Amino acid sequence: MAIRLDYQSSDFESRFAAFLTTKREVSEDVNATVRAIIDDVRARGDKALADYSRKFDGLDFATTSMRVSLEEIDAAFDAVDPKIIAALELAAQRIEKHHARQKPKDDIYEDDIGVGLGSRWTAIDAVGLYVPGGTASYPSSVLMNAVPAKVAGVPRVVMVVPAREGAINPAVLAAARIAGVDEIYRIGGAQAVAALAYGTETIAPVAKITGPGNAFVAAAKRQVFGTVGIDMIAGPSEVLVIADGDNDPDWLAADLLAQAEHDAGAQSILVTDSVALADAVEAAVERQLKTLERAETAAASWRDFGAVILVPDLKKSIPLANRIAAEHLEIATADPDALMAEIRNAGAIFVGRHTPEVIGDYVGGSNHVLPTARSARFSSGLSVLDYMKRTSILRLGAEQLRALGPAAITLAEAEGLGAHARSVAIRLNLEG
Amino acid sequence: MAIRLDYQSSDFESRFAAFLTTKREVSEDVNATVRAIIDDVRARGDKALADYSRKFDGLDFATTSMRVSLEEIDAAFDAVDPKIIAALELAAQRIEKHHARQKPKDDIYEDDIGVGLGSRWTAIDAVGLYVPGGTASYPSSVLMNAVPAKVAGVPRVVMVVPAREGAINPAVLAAARIAGVDEIYRIGGAQAVAALAYGTETIAPVAKITGPGNAFVAAAKRQVFGTVGIDMIAGPSEVLVIADGDNDPDWLAADLLAQAEHDAGAQSILVTDSVALADAVEAAVERQLKTLERAETAAASWRDFGAVILVPDLKKSIPLANRIAAEHLEIATADPDALMAEIRNAGAIFVGRHTPEVIGDYVGGSNHVLPTARSARFSSGLSVLDYMKRTSILRLGAEQLRALGPAAITLAEAEGLGAHARSVAIRLNLEG
Repeated sequence: MAIRLDYQSSDFESRFAAFLTTKREVSEDVNATVRAIIDDVRARGDKALADYSRKFDGLDFATTSMRVSLEEIDAAFDAVDPKIIAALELAAQRIEKHHARQKPKDDIYEDDIGVGLGSRWTAIDAVGLYVPGGTASYPSSVLMNAVPAKVAGVPRVVMVVPAREGAINPAVLAAARIAGVDEIYRIGGAQAVAALAYGTETIAPVAKITGPGNAFVAAAKRQVFGTVGIDMIAGPSEVLVIADGDNDPDWLAADLLAQAEHDAGAQSILVTDSVALADAVEAAVERQLKTLERAETAAASWRDFGAVILVPDLKKSIPLANRIAAEHLEIATADPDALMAEIRNAGAIFVGRHTPEVIGDYVGGSNHVLPTARSARFSSGLSVLDYMKRTSILRLGAEQLRALGPAAITLAEAEGLGAHARSVAIRLNLEG
Repeated sequence: MAIRLDYQSSDFESRFAAFLTTKREVSEDVNATVRAIIDDVRARGDKALADYSRKFDGLDFATTSMRVSLEEIDAAFDAVDPKIIAALELAAQRIEKHHARQKPKDDIYEDDIGVGLGSRWTAIDAVGLYVPGGTASYPSSVLMNAVPAKVAGVPRVVMVVPAREGAINPAVLAAARIAGVDEIYRIGGAQAVAALAYGTETIAPVAKITGPGNAFVAAAKRQVFGTVGIDMIAGPSEVLVIADGDNDPDWLAADLLAQAEHDAGAQSILVTDSVALADAVEAAVERQLKTLERAETAAASWRDFGAVILVPDLKKSIPLANRIAAEHLEIATADPDALMAEIRNAGAIFVGRHTPEVIGDYVGGSNHVLPTARSARFSSGLSVLDYMKRTSILRLGAEQLRALGPAAITLAEAEGLGAHARSVAIRLNLEG
C-alpha cells in the first residue's frame, strides 16, 4: 500500500518535503574492488580480462573468442522470433527518424566588425556501450544507446555484454545488428569498463562509455571518467501520473505497476483531484498485482515508495510536479496541454490518456534513457548531442585585432596575467 | 627547456604516447574533510557557514553580512577603473551576442502516422556560480559563466566568492553586476558548494553549480553531484600551436607563455615543420621569461610540460593534434583552413596569425571555459545548453496507439516485463 498525502492537510508540506528526499537506493561501496580491477586491466590487458571472465562468467577465452563473430550475430538474429525482429526494426526506424532531428547544425559566421566566430560539431571518434547481462539485458536499451550514436556519426560503436557461460541474449545481438554496432565483446563488469577506457591488445580504447549497469559498472564508470566521457549514472526509474477523475483506474494502475516492476527502488506516484479515482486505482493496483509475473518487485516498490497525492484542484499539481522533477510524467486529463505548458522539470512528458509511458520505452521514437532521482531539474535525456562535441572557432585579421586587442590587454593586466597582455600587445606593436 | 620530439626519429611514437599520458596534476585527497564540511552545512546551515568563514576567511558574520549588498556592489563598480569597466562591458556584450545564437529551438511535430513528438527546452530554475578568491578571482570567468546562464533564461543566478577579511576583488563584483548576477554571498570552499546544493536559512538551494575552484571545491562539487548538476571539473590549461616557418617567433613565444603563466601544471606545445622557427621560438621564450611577472610559474610549466614537436610536413600535425585534443589550438599557417578542416578534437580553434588565444579568454565572444586534459575528445566548452535542459514529449491518440501498441507489447514480453505489456494491452482491449 502506497502512502497517501493530502494537499489540504496541515502537515502536507513537511510530509511532501520528506517524501521528496527519501533515498530509494542503497549504493554499495565497491570502489576499492573496482579500483583494483581497473588497475589490473590497465597492467595486464587481455590476460586480466580472461581471468575475470573465467572467474565471474565461467568463460574460457582459450575456447570461446572474446569478440562475438559476425556469424554468431547473424545466427542470433535468425534465431529470434521474426515478430520480435519486426518490432525491433520498427523501434529502430522510429528512434533514428526522431533523433536525426536532434543533429545540431554548425554555426559559422562573421560578426559586424568582421570577427569570424563559430561552433562546429563533430562526432566522437569511438563510443563504448555497456549492456548488462542476465534479466536486465534489454534489447531496447541497445537501440536507445546505439542508434543515437550512429545518427551522430560515431564511426566506431563498441558493445560489451557479459556472457554467463558464453550465452548472450539473442535479441540483444539482433538489436546490436539492427542498430549498426561495429564490434561486440563478451565481457562485463568493471573489467569491461576498464578495457573500453584504456584499451587492451584486443580492444582499442573508446572516448566515451554509455549504458546502464550494476554497482560495479557504475563505480567503474565514475572512476574512468576524465580519461573517457560517461553518460549519467541512472538511478531507479520513476513515473508521476497526473490524472483527473475521468480515467479508467485499471489503465492508470497498469502504468504505475509498469514502473514499479522495474526495481524495488522504482517509484510510482499518482496525483489526482478525485478521491474516488485514487481509491479505485489503489484497488486496481492490488488486483493487478495478483496476476503479475514480477509481482514481488512491483509490490515492494509500490509499498515502500509509491504515493497517491490528493490535490483540491489539478493546477495545484504543477508546483508539486516541478519539485518532483519526474523521469516520466504522464498527464491523463481532459486538457493535458494546459498543465503541460506549466511543467518545467520532467525528463519526458506523455500527453493524454492514450500515451502510456511504455510506448516511450520502446517504439515512440524518443529516447528512454532519461534523468532519474529529480535530476530532470538540471539534466536531459540521452540524445544525439551526447555522442558529439562542439569546437568553437575564432578568427581575427589585423583589423579586428586592433579593434578588440586593447580591451583584452586591459583585462589581462587587471587579472595580473602579463604574458596574456603581451601576447596581444606584441602583435599590435605596443610591446615586444 | 621544453622537450623536443622529432616525428622522423625512430622512437617518436613511443615518446609521443608517453608524453600524451603524462599527468600534470597531483590531486590531493581531501574527500573526507570535504564530506565532513558538507554534512555539517546540511545539519547546521548558516551556523556552520559562519564557523567556517570565521576559521578560513577571518570573517565575522555578526558584523559583516553574508550577502553582499547592492550598495557594496555599486560601490565596487564605481571604484573600478572605467577603462576596465568598459572592457568588461565590451566582453559581456560580445559573449551575450555569440551565446544568444546557441539558444536551442523547441522542436514539436507530428510524424507521418500522427504521433506527436517533441523536444522542449527550459532554463534551469537556479544556478550557483563559484568564483575563487585571491589571485584566481577572475572577472572574466564571472562573465563566461554568468552571461550564458542569463542568456539561457535562468531566473536566479547566485554567486559565491570567498572574502579573506571581507575583501572581494571589486572587478569581480563589477563583472557580476554587468552579467546580471542576482545574489552574491561572501562564502567559499566546500562549505559554499554545500550551501548552494542543500540550501541554508539564508541561501535557497540551486539546481546546478558551475565555475572553477581549488581541490576542496572540486571535491565538493563531485560529492554533491546528483543532488545538483555540476559543470566539468577543469584541469590545468593547455595550448597547442601549429605553425609554419613564416611566423614571428616572439608572437608564438608570447602565446606559449600566456598558457604557461596560468599554472605550473599548464602545458604549451608547438608543432612546426621548421627547425629554424622551433629554435627561434625556444630562444624567444627564454628571453621573454626574463621580463615576465609570473616567470616562475611559466618557467616551471614550460620546463616540465612544454614541448616542441618537429614534423616533416604540417599535414602530419593533424593526427597528432587529434590525439592531443587540446583545450586551445592555434593554427598559425599560411592556409589555416586546410588544416582546420581535418581537426576533429579541440576545445577551441584560433585561426590565423592574428588570433592569439588570449582574445578568446576575454573579448572574442566565445566561451573560455573549455575541455582540458584531452577531454575535447568527448566533451565541449561551456555553452547556453549547460544552463538548460530538454524535456521530451510524446503524444498518441487511440489510432496511433493501435498502430504502435502491438510492437511495444511484443518487446515488453520479450524483455519479461508483464506490467509494461499490460499497460498497452489494457488500452487496446487485448487484456484487462
